Amino acid sequence: MFAVYSQDHQYHNPRFELVDGQFSPPFEHPRRAETVLAQIREISLGHILPPRDFGLSAILRVHDEGFVRFLQTAWNEWSLVRGEGDAFPFTWIGRAMRRDKVPETSDGKLGYYAFDAGTPITSGTWRAATTSVNVALTGQELVAKGERAVFALCRPPGHHAARDCYGGYCFLNNAAIAAQAFRDAGAERVAILDVDYHHGNGTQEIFYDRRDILFVSLHAHPRQEYPYFSGYEDERGAGTGEGYNQNYPLPWGTDWTSYREPLEDAIRAIRNYSPDAFVVSLGVDTFEKDPICKFQFHKEDYLRLGEAIARVNKPTLFVMEGGYAVDELGLNVVNVLVGFENAC
Amino acid sequence: MFAVYSQDHQYHNPRFELVDGQFSPPFEHPRRAETVLAQIREISLGHILPPRDFGLSAILRVHDEGFVRFLQTAWNEWSLVRGEGDAFPFTWIGRAMRRDKVPETSDGKLGYYAFDAGTPITSGTWRAATTSVNVALTGQELVAKGERAVFALCRPPGHHAARDCYGGYCFLNNAAIAAQAFRDAGAERVAILDVDYHHGNGTQEIFYDRRDILFVSLHAHPRQEYPYFSGYEDERGAGTGEGYNQNYPLPWGTDWTSYREPLEDAIRAIRNYSPDAFVVSLGVDTFEKDPICKFQFHKEDYLRLGEAIARVNKPTLFVMEGGYAVDELGLNVVNVLVGFENAC
Repeated sequence: MFAVYSQDHQYHNPRFELVDGQFSPPFEHPRRAETVLAQIREISLGHILPPRDFGLSAILRVHDEGFVRFLQTAWNEWSLVRGEGDAFPFTWIGRAMRRDKVPETSDGKLGYYAFDAGTPITSGTWRAATTSVNVALTGQELVAKGERAVFALCRPPGHHAARDCYGGYCFLNNAAIAAQAFRDAGAERVAILDVDYHHGNGTQEIFYDRRDILFVSLHAHPRQEYPYFSGYEDERGAGTGEGYNQNYPLPWGTDWTSYREPLEDAIRAIRNYSPDAFVVSLGVDTFEKDPICKFQFHKEDYLRLGEAIARVNKPTLFVMEGGYAVDELGLNVVNVLVGFENAC
Repeated sequence: MFAVYSQDHQYHNPRFELVDGQFSPPFEHPRRAETVLAQIREISLGHILPPRDFGLSAILRVHDEGFVRFLQTAWNEWSLVRGEGDAFPFTWIGRAMRRDKVPETSDGKLGYYAFDAGTPITSGTWRAATTSVNVALTGQELVAKGERAVFALCRPPGHHAARDCYGGYCFLNNAAIAAQAFRDAGAERVAILDVDYHHGNGTQEIFYDRRDILFVSLHAHPRQEYPYFSGYEDERGAGTGEGYNQNYPLPWGTDWTSYREPLEDAIRAIRNYSPDAFVVSLGVDTFEKDPICKFQFHKEDYLRLGEAIARVNKPTLFVMEGGYAVDELGLNVVNVLVGFENAC
């Protein structure tokens, strides 16, 4: 299996993130991608290709133009007033406040476009985030041209990024952009399976009213877990997209045994949909030792996860999302890919 | 003029607030109230009374019950998991996310009920915030019983607190609770004038669809300034409240000369409304040396402001809101009250 990787992810290297009421060393850091890369090399998964540059047009197929322009300039605007530190929002749109006006000043724009304060924008975030998109799109192109499966080693991740909102370590939605690119390359139906511990609120939002892109997600229940305000079972799509969004919220403590049945159900739904292309938002923060998550996957469970994904039996793009147990991260990711390949 | 004060405000004494991407010593701190108290004593404004306890019922007349219960327990829930530090939200409801579900866990609830991350909840916040309400209600009761004017030295401030949302250093909306108490004591019409530098989004929201309480606010333009998503001129009330909400958003750099005309307009509107009781949300962060604001009031301008307020010529409750230039804060507040008294 080809993998796509660029070391440009290192340009997104925040000093701190906001956790538990303090600024702490980030859980989402460059070593995450490096450890996955090392493990891919270790097992000789296949060639590791650099991304090519797709420009902004594919991004603008799913993201709002004002939002993209904001991300491109946010750190510069921030640093003009505040110097070299990373940009954090501190206020946002309250329940009864208006959503139709984008403020002119830096704090206002950050609050308008963010949905959390745990996702710093650094001097290099734009470069890293656009490269991450290119990594996904390079993988997508390879799959569209006939590869059975490709692994896009994206960093920063993307599935929390909505049409005009960033958060959850995500800026641009790599998986959604790739799914749209499959459509634009001729696929009639695209399915996305999101197995990250957290709900892929961004991907859901982007395709919520569409039936040409099926979104299926298994994740920690929003009653208990980030992103809290998205991922309930009754979010089933809207308009012509009704029925083409499927959430499986699962309680804290979920292990492979209790995950298997909803996963089988999800795989069945995707097979019934019969997509022309298949995107997997691959987070391994379901791992028992993940420092910020509360599922109980063991490392060998990821082999089973890969096998299950293979049963969709369609051209498949794996897009890297979360996973923060950095010592085992590479092995867990590789186990999914190996389980997948062995079952193909 | 009577003033009402309790030293219980000191129970809200956060260690840090989130500003410019870092935790810094708070701008909103106990010395603010103490310096105002000292200045009131200095000029012998009148008797300084302690508040009496009004319980929760007056609070629940304007705030959501779930929200009030949350404020009461938020720090305890937070500290069970995270120890003694102050509670800060780090994520919130993004644009496309759902607003109909309150999460079960601490981070989720904080994100649900907050609209900024600059307003720490401390171990003593509930006690201070409820005392602040009692300070306002004690003042309201004195005015309702015949006092021409009373100054409620509230801290924490209140005008950003909405029906079920806190932020902007505010937890419970002292001015709104007092205005409702005037109604409940028999006043048919109550007017609120908010002269704080920041828009009183909470007060606006609470009374937005009502014509029995007129809300008029002069403040920095939300295009440029906190709270960013509230305070535009076209927010004029809804339903039977249409026309009973009046905003005067003003640009950075506004001084007394350019403030006077919109103020006169506001006073005229309030006089035309002919309220039975009048509440002033008194912030003096319009001051030229305020560290977080960008208006250009000089200290003597506050005498003129007090004179203008006196022209409403109705039983008046002053409720303390913002103002962060702590060295001049007491003098600026007292100048408003003295200007008012001299003109009565």
